[in-house]
Amino acid sequence: MVLAEGVNRIEHVSLHVRAPRRFGVVDLTPYLRDAVASCGLAGGTCRAFVKHTTCSLLINELESGLLEDIEALVSRLIPPAAYYAHDDENRRTENLTPGTIEPVNAPAHLGQMLVGAPSQTIPVVDGAVALGRWQSLLLIEFDEPRDREILFQLLGY
Amino acid sequence: MVLAEGVNRIEHVSLHVRAPRRFGVVDLTPYLRDAVASCGLAGGTCRAFVKHTTCSLLINELESGLLEDIEALVSRLIPPAAYYAHDDENRRTENLTPGTIEPVNAPAHLGQMLVGAPSQTIPVVDGAVALGRWQSLLLIEFDEPRDREILFQLLGY
Amino acid sequence: MVLAEGVNRIEHVSLHVRAPRRFGVVDLTPYLRDAVASCGLAGGTCRAFVKHTTCSLLINELESGLLEDIEALVSRLIPPAAYYAHDDENRRTENLTPGTIEPVNAPAHLGQMLVGAPSQTIPVVDGAVALGRWQSLLLIEFDEPRDREILFQLLGY
Repeated sequence: MVLAEGVNRIEHVSLHVRAPRRFGVVDLTPYLRDAVASCGLAGGTCRAFVKHTTCSLLINELESGLLEDIEALVSRLIPPAAYYAHDDENRRTENLTPGTIEPVNAPAHLGQMLVGAPSQTIPVVDGAVALGRWQSLLLIEFDEPRDREILFQLLGY
Repeated sequence: MVLAEGVNRIEHVSLHVRAPRRFGVVDLTPYLRDAVASCGLAGGTCRAFVKHTTCSLLINELESGLLEDIEALVSRLIPPAAYYAHDDENRRTENLTPGTIEPVNAPAHLGQMLVGAPSQTIPVVDGAVALGRWQSLLLIEFDEPRDREILFQLLGY
Repeated sequence: MVLAEGVNRIEHVSLHVRAPRRFGVVDLTPYLRDAVASCGLAGGTCRAFVKHTTCSLLINELESGLLEDIEALVSRLIPPAAYYAHDDENRRTENLTPGTIEPVNAPAHLGQMLVGAPSQTIPVVDGAVALGRWQSLLLIEFDEPRDREILFQLLGY
């Protein structure tokens, strides 16, 4: 057990990224380390929060084969060609934006629910992000690639 | 990057809700905004924590068709008619409450594990909940509807 | 609503555990309560963070039948005998450790993504962990059992 100081600062760093393709990932780990370093946070937490509903934040290993496996798994559990009420233009009446064509993205919403989360919180200990050896903080895109805003919130001392 | 103040207050708001039916949702977003406003929280976080094991908290879009898609997905991945050891009255010996009939709810426990989480944390920036345009904080019920307690914990300044 | 004090301390407790077998769980609830009690935390949060990519933290009911149901569900959704690019030694080139045989564990990575999360945050109110009656904090192992490090981070007063 280590006695430490309290939370005497909260800082925010906003980041905009774009995945290369559907099921593509953006490695947020360097941005996370930069945010902690540039704030000079010695201890506390860094929370990453993504302000969207069809992509997720995930902490896992960054390895190309594994990303291929995620795509295969999610596409099998949530088949893109199945019927989805959210994408049924004959039934959909809610949350429509006048003058725009609604994206067909129910599977992307459901992917967000099954895999990862809208936020991940990582402890910061002795000035370093306490990720394990194989842990990376990843944004995974389930939708057509688009600009995504991530808010890093740092709390600590 | 915005330099901000530290966490000089922690406040709790307890909420009781009940979904209208299995796979029904309760939109917690207005309660979340109320809790932040009534506490006068200028910056920090609001965490929602649900004290139950067969419902989840989810941040996604509130749209009827999408809720129908969630129900279809979870019912397909976790078929209600399949065998579940948790619901096998010939084998179950643990966590029984004398004098009561044990609910048949293994699929609801498993639903909680696949979709959403027992807690969601939302940043508060400049006095406002930092949810994206399409993000709502939802309780999703996987069990027979029952009273559910949600604890909002606000940390900040 | 309860007005409370701010966060004037952050403390860390590190824990090492090992599940008895694949899909085995370790009940972390007693360790969580011990950490809160030994730190004398009166209010705030306790976050558990696991520094690994093939096991998860879960808050749900601890009941043997339910654990059997989780194993059956995950094994059905992520069949161990299917093809996984992460485990294809003819293709894998990234993140290899010279002199060691790479574990065959893509299903364990994918299990971590579907069930639970690398961290769980539990409110502490009036000196007590605010878990509901049936909620336990569990580590669930999706890989061959190995030593796992959990970091408890306590923030509060």
